[in-house]
Amino acid sequence: MSQTKILLDEAEIPTHWYNVVADMPNPPAPPLGPDGKPIGPEALTAIFPMSLIEQEMSAQRWIEIPEKVREIYQLWRPSPMFRAHRLEAALGTPAKIYYKYEGVSPAGSHKPNTAVAQAYYNAEAGIKRIATETGAGQWGCSMALAGQMFGLDVRVYMVKVSYGQKPYRRSMMQAWGAEVFASPSMETHTGRAALAADPDNQGSLGLAISEAVEDAANRADTNYALGSVLNHVLLHQTVIGLEAKKQFEKVGDYPDMIFAPCGGGSNFGGAAFPFFADKAAGKNVRLVAVEPTSCPTLTRGHYAYDFGDTAKLTPMMLMYTLGHDFMPPGIHAGGLRYHGDSALVSQLYHEKLIEAVAVPQLATFQAGVTFARAEGIIPAPESNHAIAACIDEALRCKESGEAKTLFFNLSGHGHFDMGAYDSYFSGKLEDFAYPEEAIKAALERLPKVG
Amino acid sequence: MSQTKILLDEAEIPTHWYNVVADMPNPPAPPLGPDGKPIGPEALTAIFPMSLIEQEMSAQRWIEIPEKVREIYQLWRPSPMFRAHRLEAALGTPAKIYYKYEGVSPAGSHKPNTAVAQAYYNAEAGIKRIATETGAGQWGCSMALAGQMFGLDVRVYMVKVSYGQKPYRRSMMQAWGAEVFASPSMETHTGRAALAADPDNQGSLGLAISEAVEDAANRADTNYALGSVLNHVLLHQTVIGLEAKKQFEKVGDYPDMIFAPCGGGSNFGGAAFPFFADKAAGKNVRLVAVEPTSCPTLTRGHYAYDFGDTAKLTPMMLMYTLGHDFMPPGIHAGGLRYHGDSALVSQLYHEKLIEAVAVPQLATFQAGVTFARAEGIIPAPESNHAIAACIDEALRCKESGEAKTLFFNLSGHGHFDMGAYDSYFSGKLEDFAYPEEAIKAALERLPKVG
Repeated sequence: MSQTKILLDEAEIPTHWYNVVADMPNPPAPPLGPDGKPIGPEALTAIFPMSLIEQEMSAQRWIEIPEKVREIYQLWRPSPMFRAHRLEAALGTPAKIYYKYEGVSPAGSHKPNTAVAQAYYNAEAGIKRIATETGAGQWGCSMALAGQMFGLDVRVYMVKVSYGQKPYRRSMMQAWGAEVFASPSMETHTGRAALAADPDNQGSLGLAISEAVEDAANRADTNYALGSVLNHVLLHQTVIGLEAKKQFEKVGDYPDMIFAPCGGGSNFGGAAFPFFADKAAGKNVRLVAVEPTSCPTLTRGHYAYDFGDTAKLTPMMLMYTLGHDFMPPGIHAGGLRYHGDSALVSQLYHEKLIEAVAVPQLATFQAGVTFARAEGIIPAPESNHAIAACIDEALRCKESGEAKTLFFNLSGHGHFDMGAYDSYFSGKLEDFAYPEEAIKAALERLPKVG
Repeated sequence: MSQTKILLDEAEIPTHWYNVVADMPNPPAPPLGPDGKPIGPEALTAIFPMSLIEQEMSAQRWIEIPEKVREIYQLWRPSPMFRAHRLEAALGTPAKIYYKYEGVSPAGSHKPNTAVAQAYYNAEAGIKRIATETGAGQWGCSMALAGQMFGLDVRVYMVKVSYGQKPYRRSMMQAWGAEVFASPSMETHTGRAALAADPDNQGSLGLAISEAVEDAANRADTNYALGSVLNHVLLHQTVIGLEAKKQFEKVGDYPDMIFAPCGGGSNFGGAAFPFFADKAAGKNVRLVAVEPTSCPTLTRGHYAYDFGDTAKLTPMMLMYTLGHDFMPPGIHAGGLRYHGDSALVSQLYHEKLIEAVAVPQLATFQAGVTFARAEGIIPAPESNHAIAACIDEALRCKESGEAKTLFFNLSGHGHFDMGAYDSYFSGKLEDFAYPEEAIKAALERLPKVG
């Protein structure tokens, strides 16, 4: 029998996170305050502990993972890497395909990697309560789990349309002891204003972020936690790529190309950044961020300063953006429906050091079903984006006869997304294009800076 | 950091299944045909391949696992064993608690361990199609997955009430290419008769078994597959306990008591039988089957010959039974709602070589939430039964100061059962007692044998 799973011991859980800033050719562009000037650490102390603010601004290559965080990681890490023998055979490709499976976490995705770290640092700083938002529910679940592990109360503002459509995710957050409100809620000024303007407002991720930030800013015992986009979030996710590198070493292989879904960027950054260190040192490895054609931030957005949320409460970041008031179509990959992107991912893409590709929704589900029938695991719709791009490359290898080594991040399972698969099978799923006019319109609404 | 996960290499996947019959003090009582006489292998050839019939009747201690089955096992096996440090601390018990986690299979439970084996042997025998039934959906998903792996078409008769209530399980079966009908269906005589008598018939597991057996018996290209109860099913599940023994060896420990949920018996048999071998050799280990108070087959049923299904299509088995027409209350542990039990488990219980305990529904969910908040994983309602009994014992250890080693089978995750947790949190969940009158009534309806 040829090896399928490449496992590591608990002792091989990384001891340090990798900070890509140390290997970037140019320092990251600073976030800007409302006055258009770079903000300092003090601008963030109302909602984040100093330890995370320091990580957010750090250029240090390695940052130690606290032992208590590694202890919680032990509940599911190191995560397995698989050689996809059956998928390779089904495609008839000479390419070797590997995937890292992050769905083994109790919350079912890679998100707890940072949630646990954020809960730890907040608890250390004496914080008693975390306010956060969630769209499809993956991040809310992860924060609920992490809060429970470190004795923090967790308040989740869940986008109202998901609150109704995804009751199982809500029950899961409650199982881990979190308090869940449909957003817009009556709990914040932002929420009440939105409901006053439109009592039927179904919410959006940008609006839910605004509610959670307001909640955190107004209570001394409460901080805010974000599940992607920020530098410290991507930092924590690098355990994925760091483990994957060790796993490739074990089997004496190395990827030619790496594919990861890209919404806010933590999935991609977590899997790909540790390999960027090798690329910066001269190694030939291609890093491909995969996004939906319906929300094509990197491939069709503007590289400009913009806000992270609808209510303009966050600092402005230099990033690829479709405009902070862009409302992406209701695709099932909820985790990729974000108007902007990580500043680090954006800068690396702008400097042509990483690549990006956009995939239409139907093609992602087709890829997910091909994968499930070969490898068993039913992937999350977000993960299907990486699978689709990887399968495309494997089929190109079939044409060319190249035996490339391909690697993708299977960031989560699809157990809470079977309704989306149902729509796919019954022919109800649609592709959405992002219209040219929308790009122009977004440009006009970007904040004027400098 | 103290070790949390005890992992094995793929090379340590067992090469043989363990057959408990070899170590039982008395040979198993034979199944009986409609004439009340022991049936021979030929009575089963219409619905099972000869290889499985031989396993069903074998007394050989070790039966080799085909390499192609082990190759599919590699997709998730060996499954991890965990030391529940955080649960022990939460309970304040001196007991050491270990659990084996079978929720890592793509279908989310232990069921694929036998589904894969059954699909393999049927494919080897030239069978093209499998008909089976499913209640809550775990078995149907497992058979769909296994059929896909060996190129078999799979037809699942899904109890109608679950078909409506658990659409995600249905979509999952479809993702693996299976065809799913609500039972009673118009596809079989049994189904049409049930619908003619009551067009609103919501189905039952016994009725769905009858439909699947009829389907298989009437088509030469089709066989039947059962997810529990039968000897060969329990045999295949022994990979769980065999791996667990190796994992205990790795950490130099051994269980004083083993807890596993018990419905049809494959969950319990799979986890406990390999330890029974040690018990038969004189080792002091207690094996505890845990069932719901609402369907208390072992603890309050009759030890008698009875049918396995409502329509009396199956042979009669000597087992603990609540009567083949017993309709258990609609508890959320769907996998434990079976009127009978494995003949092997029944005989060992009757001979006082294993123990059984019944737990009320609310207590099982309380235990599941305690577990989830300590260890992260949200368990399936079936698994919560084992957890509840194990926690009870851990708390007795706290009283007595005994540092016992406790082990339970965490047979699956609860991702498709969050609605049940929701009912629990909202106070809608009920306990059901099994009334004394029902026991007497069942006795009167048992088939007259001999």
